[in-house]
Amino acid sequence: MSTQAIRLVIVTEKLLFNHLARIIDASGASGYTVTDADGQGSRGESSSKRPTVTANYEKMKVEVITTDEAVARAIADEVSTKYFDNFSGLIFMDRVEVLFAHAL
Amino acid sequence: MSTQAIRLVIVTEKLLFNHLARIIDASGASGYTVTDADGQGSRGESSSKRPTVTANYEKMKVEVITTDEAVARAIADEVSTKYFDNFSGLIFMDRVEVLFAHAL
Amino acid sequence: MSTQAIRLVIVTEKLLFNHLARIIDASGASGYTVTDADGQGSRGESSSKRPTVTANYEKMKVEVITTDEAVARAIADEVSTKYFDNFSGLIFMDRVEVLFAHAL
Repeated sequence: MSTQAIRLVIVTEKLLFNHLARIIDASGASGYTVTDADGQGSRGESSSKRPTVTANYEKMKVEVITTDEAVARAIADEVSTKYFDNFSGLIFMDRVEVLFAHAL
Repeated sequence: MSTQAIRLVIVTEKLLFNHLARIIDASGASGYTVTDADGQGSRGESSSKRPTVTANYEKMKVEVITTDEAVARAIADEVSTKYFDNFSGLIFMDRVEVLFAHAL
Repeated sequence: MSTQAIRLVIVTEKLLFNHLARIIDASGASGYTVTDADGQGSRGESSSKRPTVTANYEKMKVEVITTDEAVARAIADEVSTKYFDNFSGLIFMDRVEVLFAHAL
Protein backbone atom coordinates (compact mmCIF):
# COMPACT_ATOMS: atom_id res chain seq x y z
CA MET A 1 0.00 0.00 0.00
CA SER A 2 1.23 3.49 -0.79
CA THR A 3 -1.12 6.42 -0.98
CA GLN A 4 -0.64 10.15 -1.32
CA ALA A 5 -2.32 11.96 1.54
CA ILE A 6 -2.58 15.30 3.27
CA ARG A 7 -1.17 15.81 6.73
CA LEU A 8 -3.08 18.56 8.51
CA VAL A 9 -1.41 19.96 11.63
CA ILE A 10 -3.28 22.05 14.19
CA VAL A 11 -1.33 23.63 17.05
CA THR A 12 -3.61 25.14 19.65
CA GLU A 13 -4.62 25.17 23.29
CA LYS A 14 -5.16 21.84 24.96
CA LEU A 15 -8.50 22.78 26.43
CA LEU A 16 -9.93 22.68 22.90
CA PHE A 17 -9.13 19.00 22.55
CA ASN A 18 -12.65 17.63 22.83
CA HIS A 19 -13.97 20.27 20.46
CA LEU A 20 -11.38 19.40 17.85
CA ALA A 21 -11.87 15.67 18.29
CA ARG A 22 -15.59 16.10 17.64
CA ILE A 23 -14.97 18.14 14.50
CA ILE A 24 -12.43 15.61 13.19
CA ASP A 25 -14.68 12.65 13.99
CA ALA A 26 -17.55 14.30 12.12
CA SER A 27 -15.38 15.22 9.12
CA GLY A 28 -14.91 11.72 7.84
CA ALA A 29 -11.18 11.67 8.57
CA SER A 30 -10.12 8.26 9.83
CA GLY A 31 -8.25 9.41 12.91
CA TYR A 32 -5.78 11.77 14.44
CA THR A 33 -2.65 11.88 16.56
CA VAL A 34 -2.23 14.29 19.44
CA THR A 35 1.02 15.37 21.07
CA ASP A 36 1.71 17.69 23.99
CA ALA A 37 3.32 20.90 22.88
CA ASP A 38 4.10 24.34 24.05
CA GLY A 39 5.23 27.39 22.24
CA GLN A 40 5.26 31.05 21.74
CA GLY A 41 2.97 32.36 19.08
CA SER A 42 2.52 35.64 17.38
CA ARG A 43 0.05 37.10 19.83
CA GLY A 44 2.76 39.18 21.35
CA GLU A 45 3.43 37.33 24.55
CA SER A 46 6.43 38.85 26.21
CA SER A 47 9.63 36.92 26.58
CA SER A 48 8.97 36.71 30.28
CA LYS A 49 6.07 34.42 29.42
CA ARG A 50 8.32 32.16 27.42
CA PRO A 51 7.29 28.58 28.10
CA THR A 52 9.69 26.48 30.06
CA VAL A 53 10.00 22.90 29.03
CA THR A 54 9.71 21.77 32.60
CA ALA A 55 6.26 23.33 32.85
CA ASN A 56 3.09 21.46 32.07
CA TYR A 57 2.38 21.65 28.40
CA GLU A 58 -0.72 23.68 27.76
CA LYS A 59 -0.83 23.35 24.04
CA MET A 60 -1.17 20.39 21.78
CA LYS A 61 -0.37 19.43 18.25
CA VAL A 62 -3.14 17.51 16.52
CA GLU A 63 -2.27 15.77 13.26
CA VAL A 64 -4.80 14.37 10.83
CA ILE A 65 -3.82 12.24 7.84
CA THR A 66 -6.46 12.14 5.14
CA THR A 67 -6.53 11.31 1.46
CA ASP A 68 -9.19 13.94 0.92
CA GLU A 69 -7.81 17.46 0.77
CA ALA A 70 -11.32 18.89 1.01
CA VAL A 71 -11.74 17.15 4.37
CA ALA A 72 -8.50 18.71 5.61
CA ARG A 73 -9.53 22.17 4.47
CA ALA A 74 -13.01 21.79 5.97
CA ILE A 75 -11.54 20.84 9.36
CA ALA A 76 -9.18 23.84 9.19
CA ASP A 77 -12.00 26.20 8.29
CA GLU A 78 -14.32 25.00 11.02
CA VAL A 79 -11.67 25.01 13.73
CA SER A 80 -10.30 28.44 12.85
CA THR A 81 -13.73 30.01 12.43
CA LYS A 82 -15.13 28.62 15.67
CA TYR A 83 -12.18 29.01 18.00
CA PHE A 84 -9.32 31.13 16.78
CA ASP A 85 -10.85 34.49 17.52
CA ASN A 86 -10.49 33.55 21.16
CA PHE A 87 -7.68 31.02 21.30
CA SER A 88 -4.23 30.98 19.81
CA GLY A 89 -3.81 28.65 16.88
CA LEU A 90 -1.77 27.67 13.87
CA ILE A 91 -2.91 25.33 11.11
CA PHE A 92 -0.79 24.10 8.26
CA MET A 93 -0.70 21.14 5.91
CA ASP A 94 1.65 19.29 3.63
CA ARG A 95 1.68 16.15 1.53
CA VAL A 96 2.92 12.76 2.67
CA GLU A 97 3.05 9.26 1.29
CA VAL A 98 1.21 6.81 3.51
CA LEU A 99 2.94 3.41 3.53
CA PHE A 100 0.71 1.66 6.02
CA ALA A 101 -2.51 2.41 7.86
CA HIS A 102 -5.32 0.29 9.19
CA ALA A 103 -7.71 2.12 6.92
CA LEU A 104 -7.42 5.44 5.25
CA MET B 1 25.71 20.94 4.65
CA SER B 2 22.36 20.49 2.99
CA THR B 3 21.07 17.07 2.01
CA GLN B 4 17.78 15.78 0.72
CA ALA B 5 16.44 13.06 2.97
CA ILE B 6 13.38 10.99 3.77
CA ARG B 7 11.50 11.50 7.00
CA LEU B 8 9.74 8.28 7.95
CA VAL B 9 7.07 8.61 10.64
CA ILE B 10 5.67 5.63 12.53
CA VAL B 11 2.77 6.17 14.93
CA THR B 12 2.05 3.09 17.00
CA GLU B 13 1.72 1.68 20.49
CA LYS B 14 4.44 2.53 22.95
CA LEU B 15 4.96 -1.04 24.06
CA LEU B 16 6.53 -1.73 20.65
CA PHE B 17 9.31 0.75 21.29
CA ASN B 18 12.15 -1.69 21.85
CA HIS B 19 11.08 -3.75 18.85
CA LEU B 20 11.11 -0.70 16.60
CA ALA B 21 14.40 0.57 18.00
CA ARG B 22 16.01 -2.76 17.19
CA ILE B 23 14.67 -2.72 13.63
CA ILE B 24 15.83 0.86 13.07
CA ASP B 25 19.27 0.18 14.57
CA ALA B 26 19.68 -2.82 12.28
CA SER B 27 18.49 -0.93 9.19
CA GLY B 28 21.49 1.31 8.87
CA ALA B 29 19.54 4.49 9.66
CA SER B 30 21.62 6.81 11.78
CA GLY B 31 19.05 7.47 14.49
CA TYR B 32 15.50 8.28 15.40
CA THR B 33 13.42 10.64 17.48
CA VAL B 34 10.55 9.44 19.64
CA THR B 35 7.68 11.53 20.99
CA ASP B 36 4.76 10.61 23.22
CA ALA B 37 1.50 10.66 21.34
CA ASP B 38 -2.04 9.54 21.58
CA GLY B 39 -4.76 9.36 19.07
CA GLN B 40 -7.78 7.71 17.66
CA GLY B 41 -7.18 5.49 14.70
CA SER B 42 -9.42 3.79 12.27
CA ARG B 43 -9.91 0.62 14.25
CA GLY B 44 -13.33 1.79 15.28
CA GLU B 45 -12.73 2.81 18.84
CA SER B 46 -15.87 4.44 20.14
CA SER B 47 -15.89 8.09 21.08
CA SER B 48 -16.13 7.04 24.69
CA LYS B 49 -12.58 5.74 24.29
CA ARG B 50 -11.39 9.05 22.96
CA PRO B 51 -8.01 9.78 24.52
CA THR B 52 -7.86 12.54 27.02
CA VAL B 53 -4.80 14.70 26.95
CA THR B 54 -4.44 14.43 30.68
CA ALA B 55 -4.11 10.66 30.46
CA ASN B 56 -0.82 8.85 30.09
CA TYR B 57 0.13 8.67 26.47
CA GLU B 58 0.08 5.08 25.25
CA LYS B 59 1.22 5.71 21.75
CA MET B 60 4.38 7.17 20.33
CA LYS B 61 5.57 8.83 17.19
CA VAL B 62 8.91 7.56 15.97
CA GLU B 63 10.67 9.61 13.30
CA VAL B 64 13.62 8.43 11.26
CA ILE B 65 15.58 10.71 8.95
CA THR B 66 17.55 8.85 6.32
CA THR B 67 19.08 9.72 2.97
CA ASP B 68 18.30 6.23 1.73
CA GLU B 69 14.68 5.80 0.68
CA ALA B 70 15.16 2.03 0.48
CA VAL B 71 16.10 2.01 4.17
CA ALA B 72 12.93 3.91 5.03
CA ARG B 73 10.76 1.54 3.01
CA ALA B 74 12.47 -1.52 4.48
CA ILE B 75 11.81 -0.30 8.02
CA ALA B 76 8.17 0.38 7.14
CA ASP B 77 7.76 -3.07 5.59
CA GLU B 78 9.32 -4.91 8.49
CA VAL B 79 7.41 -2.99 11.16
CA SER B 80 4.05 -3.30 9.44
CA THR B 81 4.50 -6.96 8.56
CA LYS B 82 5.66 -8.00 12.02
CA TYR B 83 3.38 -5.96 14.23
CA PHE B 84 0.45 -4.29 12.56
CA ASP B 85 -1.80 -7.31 12.35
CA ASN B 86 -1.97 -7.09 16.12
CA PHE B 87 -1.24 -3.46 16.97
CA SER B 88 -2.59 -0.23 15.60
CA GLY B 89 -0.20 1.67 13.41
CA LEU B 90 0.25 4.34 10.80
CA ILE B 91 3.39 4.85 8.72
CA PHE B 92 4.01 7.69 6.33
CA MET B 93 6.95 9.51 4.83
CA ASP B 94 7.86 12.74 3.15
CA ARG B 95 10.95 14.55 1.94
CA VAL B 96 12.93 17.06 3.95
CA GLU B 97 16.12 19.04 3.53
CA VAL B 98 18.62 18.28 6.28
CA LEU B 99 20.63 21.38 7.21
CA PHE B 100 22.65 19.93 10.03
CA ALA B 101 23.23 16.49 11.55
CA HIS B 102 26.11 14.88 13.34
CA ALA B 103 26.30 12.30 10.61
CA LEU B 104 23.75 11.24 8.07
CA MET C 1 -5.60 32.81 4.08
CA SER C 2 -3.21 30.31 2.59
CA THR C 3 0.52 30.92 2.51
CA GLN C 4 3.51 28.85 1.54
CA ALA C 5 5.97 28.65 4.39
CA ILE C 6 9.04 26.84 5.65
CA ARG C 7 8.84 24.51 8.62
CA LEU C 8 12.21 24.37 10.35
CA VAL C 9 12.66 21.49 12.80
CA ILE C 10 15.45 21.41 15.37
CA VAL C 11 15.91 18.28 17.48
CA THR C 12 18.40 18.80 20.28
CA GLU C 13 19.00 18.70 24.00
CA LYS C 14 16.40 20.30 26.21
CA LEU C 15 18.91 22.28 28.21
CA LEU C 16 19.46 24.45 25.13
CA PHE C 17 15.85 25.61 25.15
CA ASN C 18 16.40 29.15 26.38
CA HIS C 19 19.31 29.63 24.01
CA LEU C 20 17.22 28.53 21.05
CA ALA C 21 14.22 30.60 22.12
CA ARG C 22 16.41 33.70 22.24
CA ILE C 23 17.82 33.03 18.77
CA ILE C 24 14.35 32.41 17.32
CA ASP C 25 12.91 35.51 19.00
CA ALA C 26 15.72 37.62 17.58
CA SER C 27 15.39 36.15 14.09
CA GLY C 28 12.09 37.73 13.25
CA ALA C 29 10.21 34.42 13.15
CA SER C 30 6.76 34.82 14.62
CA GLY C 31 6.89 31.90 17.04
CA TYR C 32 7.76 28.29 17.63
CA THR C 33 6.34 25.06 18.99
CA VAL C 34 8.30 22.82 21.33
CA THR C 35 7.66 19.14 22.05
CA ASP C 36 9.40 16.72 24.39
CA ALA C 37 11.36 14.13 22.50
CA ASP C 38 13.98 11.53 22.95
CA GLY C 39 16.03 9.60 20.51
CA GLN C 40 19.19 7.97 19.49
CA GLY C 41 21.41 9.98 17.25
CA SER C 42 24.47 9.25 15.27
CA ARG C 43 26.99 10.00 17.97
CA GLY C 44 27.50 6.33 18.56
CA GLU C 45 25.58 5.82 21.76
CA SER C 46 25.49 2.14 22.52
CA SER C 47 22.21 0.28 22.47
CA SER C 48 22.42 0.00 26.22
CA LYS C 49 21.86 3.74 26.30
CA ARG C 50 18.75 3.43 24.20
CA PRO C 51 16.15 5.80 25.60
CA THR C 52 13.19 4.24 27.26
CA VAL C 53 9.88 5.92 26.68
CA THR C 54 9.12 5.82 30.37
CA ALA C 55 12.20 7.91 31.13
CA ASN C 56 12.16 11.67 31.34
CA TYR C 57 12.61 13.14 27.93
CA GLU C 58 15.89 14.97 27.70
CA LYS C 59 15.58 16.18 24.17
CA MET C 60 13.10 18.44 22.48
CA LYS C 61 11.81 19.13 19.03
CA VAL C 62 11.48 22.82 18.25
CA GLU C 63 9.48 23.77 15.16
CA VAL C 64 9.46 27.19 13.55
CA ILE C 65 7.06 28.16 10.77
CA THR C 66 8.24 31.12 8.74
CA THR C 67 7.48 32.52 5.32
CA ASP C 68 11.07 33.67 5.02
CA GLU C 69 13.44 30.87 4.05
CA ALA C 70 16.43 33.11 4.84
CA VAL C 71 15.18 33.40 8.42
CA ALA C 72 14.96 29.61 8.71
CA ARG C 73 18.45 29.14 7.32
CA ALA C 74 19.87 31.87 9.57
CA ILE C 75 18.39 30.20 12.67
CA ALA C 76 19.81 26.84 11.58
CA ASP C 77 23.24 28.33 10.96
CA GLU C 78 23.41 30.15 14.27
CA VAL C 79 22.16 27.21 16.32
CA SER C 80 24.45 24.66 14.69
CA THR C 81 27.50 26.91 14.79
CA LYS C 82 27.05 27.91 18.41
CA TYR C 83 25.98 24.64 19.97
CA PHE C 84 26.39 21.54 17.87
CA ASP C 85 30.07 21.05 18.42
CA ASN C 86 29.16 20.26 21.99
CA PHE C 87 25.55 19.05 21.89
CA SER C 88 23.79 16.54 19.71
CA GLY C 89 21.48 18.04 17.15
CA LEU C 90 19.57 17.56 13.94
CA ILE C 91 18.05 20.35 11.86
CA PHE C 92 15.88 19.89 8.81
CA MET C 93 13.23 21.81 6.96
CA ASP C 94 10.42 21.30 4.51
CA ARG C 95 7.65 23.31 2.93
CA VAL C 96 4.10 23.57 4.24
CA GLU C 97 0.97 25.48 3.37
CA VAL C 98 -0.23 27.61 6.26
CA LEU C 99 -4.02 27.75 6.39
CA PHE C 100 -4.41 29.80 9.53
CA ALA C 101 -2.13 31.68 11.89
CA HIS C 102 -2.60 34.70 14.11
CA ALA C 103 0.13 36.45 12.16
CA LEU C 104 2.83 35.08 9.98
